[in-house]
Amino acid sequence: MLRSAVVFAMAVGFCHGCASERGAAASASRAPSAAPKAILLIGDGMDDHQITIARHYLVGDAGRLTLDGMPARSQVRIQTIAEENPALPEYVPDSANTATSMATGIVTSSGRIATTAATDADAATIMELAAAAGLGTGIVTTASVTDATPASFVAHVNWRLCEGPRNMVPRPQANQIFAAISCAADLKANGGNGSIAEQIAASPLDIVLGGGMQHFTQPAEGEASKTVAEIAVDNGFKLVETAAALAALPPGGKVLGLFSPSTMPVQWRGTGDARAQRVQRNAERPVAPEPFSCEPNPDFAAMPTLPAMARAALAHLDDGRGFVLMIESASIDKQSHLRRPCGQIGELGQLDATLAVVLDYARAHPETLILVTADHSQAAQLVPETSVLAGINAASPGFLARVRTPEGVLMGVNYATNDSTLQEDHTGADVPLFASGPGAEQLSASIRQREIFELLTRHLEVGSSRSAAR
Amino acid sequence: MLRSAVVFAMAVGFCHGCASERGAAASASRAPSAAPKAILLIGDGMDDHQITIARHYLVGDAGRLTLDGMPARSQVRIQTIAEENPALPEYVPDSANTATSMATGIVTSSGRIATTAATDADAATIMELAAAAGLGTGIVTTASVTDATPASFVAHVNWRLCEGPRNMVPRPQANQIFAAISCAADLKANGGNGSIAEQIAASPLDIVLGGGMQHFTQPAEGEASKTVAEIAVDNGFKLVETAAALAALPPGGKVLGLFSPSTMPVQWRGTGDARAQRVQRNAERPVAPEPFSCEPNPDFAAMPTLPAMARAALAHLDDGRGFVLMIESASIDKQSHLRRPCGQIGELGQLDATLAVVLDYARAHPETLILVTADHSQAAQLVPETSVLAGINAASPGFLARVRTPEGVLMGVNYATNDSTLQEDHTGADVPLFASGPGAEQLSASIRQREIFELLTRHLEVGSSRSAAR
Repeated sequence: MLRSAVVFAMAVGFCHGCASERGAAASASRAPSAAPKAILLIGDGMDDHQITIARHYLVGDAGRLTLDGMPARSQVRIQTIAEENPALPEYVPDSANTATSMATGIVTSSGRIATTAATDADAATIMELAAAAGLGTGIVTTASVTDATPASFVAHVNWRLCEGPRNMVPRPQANQIFAAISCAADLKANGGNGSIAEQIAASPLDIVLGGGMQHFTQPAEGEASKTVAEIAVDNGFKLVETAAALAALPPGGKVLGLFSPSTMPVQWRGTGDARAQRVQRNAERPVAPEPFSCEPNPDFAAMPTLPAMARAALAHLDDGRGFVLMIESASIDKQSHLRRPCGQIGELGQLDATLAVVLDYARAHPETLILVTADHSQAAQLVPETSVLAGINAASPGFLARVRTPEGVLMGVNYATNDSTLQEDHTGADVPLFASGPGAEQLSASIRQREIFELLTRHLEVGSSRSAAR
Repeated sequence: MLRSAVVFAMAVGFCHGCASERGAAASASRAPSAAPKAILLIGDGMDDHQITIARHYLVGDAGRLTLDGMPARSQVRIQTIAEENPALPEYVPDSANTATSMATGIVTSSGRIATTAATDADAATIMELAAAAGLGTGIVTTASVTDATPASFVAHVNWRLCEGPRNMVPRPQANQIFAAISCAADLKANGGNGSIAEQIAASPLDIVLGGGMQHFTQPAEGEASKTVAEIAVDNGFKLVETAAALAALPPGGKVLGLFSPSTMPVQWRGTGDARAQRVQRNAERPVAPEPFSCEPNPDFAAMPTLPAMARAALAHLDDGRGFVLMIESASIDKQSHLRRPCGQIGELGQLDATLAVVLDYARAHPETLILVTADHSQAAQLVPETSVLAGINAASPGFLARVRTPEGVLMGVNYATNDSTLQEDHTGADVPLFASGPGAEQLSASIRQREIFELLTRHLEVGSSRSAAR
């Protein structure tokens, strides 16, 4: 939106007991070691099918994921509203509006990054509120740091694809799938905040780790001789580009770690790069796709793992001020879109291993609230590897994978939300929420997604946004 | 299995502190009003997609179901083992083995009713343990009372379709879908317990309500002149056949209410009996099915509602002894198999309304443990009513319904586990568990399905089955 119209929640009466005052009061009365810490882990697209599929492969059907051992569980009701008429709901979200709900406490329309539907006002994010209150702030993701989920915690644009300066001007090869939404209103020249990458470069965040280097090597808007990365360095960020440099990170300062041009390569793939296939019909008899197992993805070898990035962020933020840290395993969703069950399983494994790191940290810092959730549900379904109706030649009408698990059993994973060869649609079911730490045991059976923001602000005592219209 | 080989869990060292002793000791030391009560509500196939779909229709996306207000939530990990090799898991269950896990605490193979995989030993059910301990027992279902879920709480056969005497002998028109599994071992003539209906007729249950009259009007095995229903009457059951008779039920005695020949008609259907349809292709442009809303199913008018049956069962069992009551909304699953979203929604609505009745009872009887869960997940997915890739003509490859909700928005419900015109497959994801009452707040984030049996036995103090092999 236009910078002149920027209205943070705290400036328009959204919050009771607002950031700077509350933060100062709280930090004055707290011993530094007990300063509140909040860690939000988001498995993008990590619904209950995804968790069950991953569990069977990773630990077997009688095993338990780290997730399964969390002390508290709830389920999250997703809300999306229509851009054209914000009084009407939409039932299937995207990662931008769902992350916006968690980051800002508002309900907005699909594709929006921390801005309101129709009126395009900026909504203050938990990271902004925490930074204003003197707490540490960090974002870790396996996606580009400019992707919808991380972006919603730090930037404000009207459309998730306004990722870097080059995305801000319409391109001749217009995207044929999504409606052409303009980034023009977010151009600095038009009074906006600039692209997501530029907003990250200018942000108060202490540490940002993920992919997306391509958006930072571009000249910044109105800065012919300076890239976005150089502007980030001007703002105090130390640039980190390799797993080795991350492992040797000195304490202090601001850190921007960019380990790949776009989304970081995933940990696993199907044997020989196998993915789900259409069931072939041979004289009316269905011919099921060949089974496959999972193997390491060679492109992943050079990457820092998600647990390694989380460990680095925790070490960096553990300076006594208290902090909020968002950690996203992004490609559970992205691999599910592409019908790659092994990719999903490996990335859910990365999230589960990261949760173990985070729980380990919280054992030494019991003032840490840990929330683990998904932003929305996804297409992949755990189905019989052979239909119960195979006797009458029934088989999946979509794309089917038969994954051979380490316990020697075939697992059917079905993708059938649409028939394009490109990618699956999201789905709209309630998603899991796991919690540990102060107040976790008071979690009720079902909450709205925007209440995740309330849980974070309450724990961090950084002010809370009152409910939006819906 | 053979009667001569019947081994109840308590007789083979499965349980520590067994039924009769524990039950007697407990009831001696308790005031009658505080005798423990446990109510298990099962939404057959009620996974998180089903709950979200129903919520949007019943209360809108900003509304809350009674379910949503439950104080505690967990998620249930389903387990199934292979009949041929019980050391191996199967990843997608049926309603027989899942109900068996909840009713008996064992893990068994698909299709089995309270019997062990491969070895065909009977496993003691929570109803049998409770009756032996002097507690009241009841089963309420919208299915035939002989259907897999209710059957697993009271009967022991090797195959769920051994419902009535006529099912016990192989028929010429063999089922072409399911493998031909014989009921011969369960014939009384062969030393078995007879059909499920005959086992219900001979059971100690205090009240059994549902459909399935057709299995009770048949001559019982070896009783040319007596029907199964007549044998039930000999065993003390009063037969009830209408909603009016149920409403006028006198207190005391044993009650067998059978309100329809088979599954009870469901509450709702699509306008003009609409259901999901294949997306038609017209010169490569997908033609989405016509939207529809939900309307009352005329066949339902004569039926007692699930809340009415639950109210009758509670009144009947509220005699100071304490009790265990299983209430199933069966056709969430059955309507999902048939791609009928309005049927699903109405039956989930019946379950939610029944939960309100049960919670009302528990307010006056705080010693009541309430568990609400599903047995397994189902095919229906909440998807965009128009694919995000509609711009490149993508649409569901399966059966799609576009349901117009009361808030005036189209909701996409997709069914695409197989391409037969007959019915969908089950899916294998973790399912919800909601709880209230004593101990509910101690529920962890994730439990195995067989632990539901442990929760019930612990609360009722009727002895507990130790874990089976897996």
